[in-house]
Amino acid sequence: MIDNYNALLKPDDEELSARLEAAHTRLFAQQMQMKETQLPVVVLFEGWGAAGKGTMIGRIIRNLDPRFFTAVSMHDPTPDEQRKPFLCRYFSQIPEAGRFLFMDTGWMSEITHSVLKGTMNRQVYRDRIGSVRRFERGLTDNGYLVLKFFFHITKKEQKKRLDALLDSRDTEWQVDDYDLWENKHYNECEAVFDAFLDDTSTASSPWYVVDAKSKKWAELQVMETIVAGIDMALKNHTLTVPLVQNTFPLLPMPKLADVDLNKTIAPEEYKTELKQLQEHLRELHNKAYRMRIPIIIAYEGWDAAGKGGNIKRLTSALDPRGYEVIPIASPKPHEKSRHFLWRFWTRLPKTGHIAIFDRTWYGRVMVERLEGFCSENDWQRAYNEMNEFEKELSDWGAVIIKFWVHIDKDTQLARFTERQNNPDKQWKITDEDWRNREKWDVYEQAVDEMIAKTSTSYAPWHILESNDKHYARIKALRIVIEALEDAIYH
Amino acid sequence: MIDNYNALLKPDDEELSARLEAAHTRLFAQQMQMKETQLPVVVLFEGWGAAGKGTMIGRIIRNLDPRFFTAVSMHDPTPDEQRKPFLCRYFSQIPEAGRFLFMDTGWMSEITHSVLKGTMNRQVYRDRIGSVRRFERGLTDNGYLVLKFFFHITKKEQKKRLDALLDSRDTEWQVDDYDLWENKHYNECEAVFDAFLDDTSTASSPWYVVDAKSKKWAELQVMETIVAGIDMALKNHTLTVPLVQNTFPLLPMPKLADVDLNKTIAPEEYKTELKQLQEHLRELHNKAYRMRIPIIIAYEGWDAAGKGGNIKRLTSALDPRGYEVIPIASPKPHEKSRHFLWRFWTRLPKTGHIAIFDRTWYGRVMVERLEGFCSENDWQRAYNEMNEFEKELSDWGAVIIKFWVHIDKDTQLARFTERQNNPDKQWKITDEDWRNREKWDVYEQAVDEMIAKTSTSYAPWHILESNDKHYARIKALRIVIEALEDAIYH
Repeated sequence: MIDNYNALLKPDDEELSARLEAAHTRLFAQQMQMKETQLPVVVLFEGWGAAGKGTMIGRIIRNLDPRFFTAVSMHDPTPDEQRKPFLCRYFSQIPEAGRFLFMDTGWMSEITHSVLKGTMNRQVYRDRIGSVRRFERGLTDNGYLVLKFFFHITKKEQKKRLDALLDSRDTEWQVDDYDLWENKHYNECEAVFDAFLDDTSTASSPWYVVDAKSKKWAELQVMETIVAGIDMALKNHTLTVPLVQNTFPLLPMPKLADVDLNKTIAPEEYKTELKQLQEHLRELHNKAYRMRIPIIIAYEGWDAAGKGGNIKRLTSALDPRGYEVIPIASPKPHEKSRHFLWRFWTRLPKTGHIAIFDRTWYGRVMVERLEGFCSENDWQRAYNEMNEFEKELSDWGAVIIKFWVHIDKDTQLARFTERQNNPDKQWKITDEDWRNREKWDVYEQAVDEMIAKTSTSYAPWHILESNDKHYARIKALRIVIEALEDAIYH
Repeated sequence: MIDNYNALLKPDDEELSARLEAAHTRLFAQQMQMKETQLPVVVLFEGWGAAGKGTMIGRIIRNLDPRFFTAVSMHDPTPDEQRKPFLCRYFSQIPEAGRFLFMDTGWMSEITHSVLKGTMNRQVYRDRIGSVRRFERGLTDNGYLVLKFFFHITKKEQKKRLDALLDSRDTEWQVDDYDLWENKHYNECEAVFDAFLDDTSTASSPWYVVDAKSKKWAELQVMETIVAGIDMALKNHTLTVPLVQNTFPLLPMPKLADVDLNKTIAPEEYKTELKQLQEHLRELHNKAYRMRIPIIIAYEGWDAAGKGGNIKRLTSALDPRGYEVIPIASPKPHEKSRHFLWRFWTRLPKTGHIAIFDRTWYGRVMVERLEGFCSENDWQRAYNEMNEFEKELSDWGAVIIKFWVHIDKDTQLARFTERQNNPDKQWKITDEDWRNREKWDVYEQAVDEMIAKTSTSYAPWHILESNDKHYARIKALRIVIEALEDAIYH
């Protein structure tokens, strides 16, 4: 049974009106403080059909400046959304720092309705719960305030409301078949809702069960909870987040210093192999496309290690309608003001497509770490956040391949010098490249740590020995082919 | 399977020694910062037999000032401890602000060993997990840092160590029957341990699984985790804690203003009833004593409402060997520097005994709230903390009765005046009483809120209408009798 002890705390009308007014005044003032401290707030409304979730958003925002909030009403996933990971459409919606997002139903409805319709089994449910918990914790760890409300009414009250709505031509469209089914199967629904609330109520983003029998009283509960939540988040905005120990299956990886960079391939052999492998890859890509397997290939590596040429040898084997190369530069302001993974969540391929990331989310633990673009707590937490991110992609069915394109310091110097001296290649070398080169040793340490901590069985790193670029290209093709064969035939 | 990915992160000997030295230096410096910011730290060591938990404490504290830590080695509960709630002996050990507690095995061992011995069923296990989660969260919410380590070794490694210990007269005593049993039933134990780690790993007090194959490497993992944890806690020491919504079964209660204070009892009737009820209570107390039911009676009320006389009418019916009256004054320094419930946890009765608290833990949401002795966040959180505290007592089997001894403002004035004018009673009235009286209205509001939010079905409030003290005494006796009958016969 869903607890509804708030019903016992309802004040009399006079007190209710006074407190409601006070809460609205406070929320109005908090907008500006949210902007100053760059606090983003996600407010999710879930609950019984006809419990008043939808009209509540209108009541809450009546005093708010429209520049500071977005209100969305979620629907069933579209066919395009169904070709993205479950969380993708929610992650895409998260607000910028200093802004509100109000959501009329969300991940709770999507999951519980699938359970009730019988289209989600126990195992998938458990996976979804894990995803939701990681999603919400990922937001709160990164400074988001997440407030979740469940609007609760009794079976009798719901019936009364549905009947009243059906009674008038003006309102009967508001009642759909699911609402009627829900009322008829109230107890069954309550058990599923109650389990979900229990499974996803955590210290950092608990559920609030709203006694929704009276609209004004429901509004007061919501308003006072939002106001108290924002007050708390404003006080805690410098919070340092505890690190969690890794629980994902890590693979043993060598340190960069121990990688043998003398591997080479003979020019003739390279040509023949390249052709054969590309042809093979083309076939596999078609199969993967038809099987709707999403493929994510991530490239990181030293400057001048040969990432560009390596990527080109991959893509020239692929049907252009089925892949995309996504170059990652420093984040734009609207990206910087969101969770650091947002710009990657919004660039995921559809099922069946290949996304090749030229530089990736791992910038967090390399350039952002070493240049101080994020706090120590941020980058230390990021190893786990990236393992979690890739877990979502893997659970969705994605093949994930991560390449570190590796050369030694001398080879980099030779390539830099060649670029500098060759008028056609001068554009490829900048002062920043030279500055980065000076920090080789600290970068190497950071890369070693990154590879050790994020090489999971479902998203492993592969080191491409690229002193001989040809060798690295052939190796990359082989690895992609092997991973695709594994996904297609096993 | 218990994750042990730390094994992949082991540095070489040189790096290990350097990092270990750095961590010890840092921890030495942190002692003083802990003292300054008044941070208390609980460090729990659990793990496989012969994994090296015991000797680890010696390694950790080698640089610490003995004034700043206590190290305890927990044993199986003594017969006296078995007559207290499960958590009591752990709660009693929590350190003062600014100090360490190191614990060699604790609540994990106690629970998992019971499961393995088959003396704890699934339902009790679930209850214990709930208790542990509330216990740990209660500590971290109140500013404690809780660090939990599980020392992990393989079955083979454990066998090797046990054999080595048994091989020598000097060490064979270190191996007990349980250790051998554990090694023989390693897989069964691992499943139970793994479930426990999973069930009690939370964001605010996660488990750290230590790769304990090498002592020095294990020490480094522990030291670096402690150092990082303290750093984080020092940064977060002004943290405001999110409030959780009540999930305990609340009872509807009237506001004080709506209580009818005109109830009286005739003098003759009072005498007869008093005698009968006291006799009845005496019998019930004997039964409860033999059935080992613990009973907790909590008194709160207005100054001069008649608490003392009311308590006396109860105790005069009781065998003095089976009850204790516990007067609660303002906390002493060593109490103030611990979790606010510590002084109540350490004063609980044994099973079969009655503890009568003359004023209680509810001071937190009355005097401490209104006089500013704790923060707003502290007293707002306290409603739930007290419901949780009483839940532990109730799960232990305790009968819990809470009285609010109620009078109106005029009656208080009359009694104050009488005390002032009567030389025998002048000691009973102080300037503070008059000052409190001036704050009657804010106190009344706080009491209304307290009663509404903490009157649970397992620990309800009862309002004793005490304008007529006789009436209040008879009502109190009846309520205690009814509660005891309920516990004894149902």
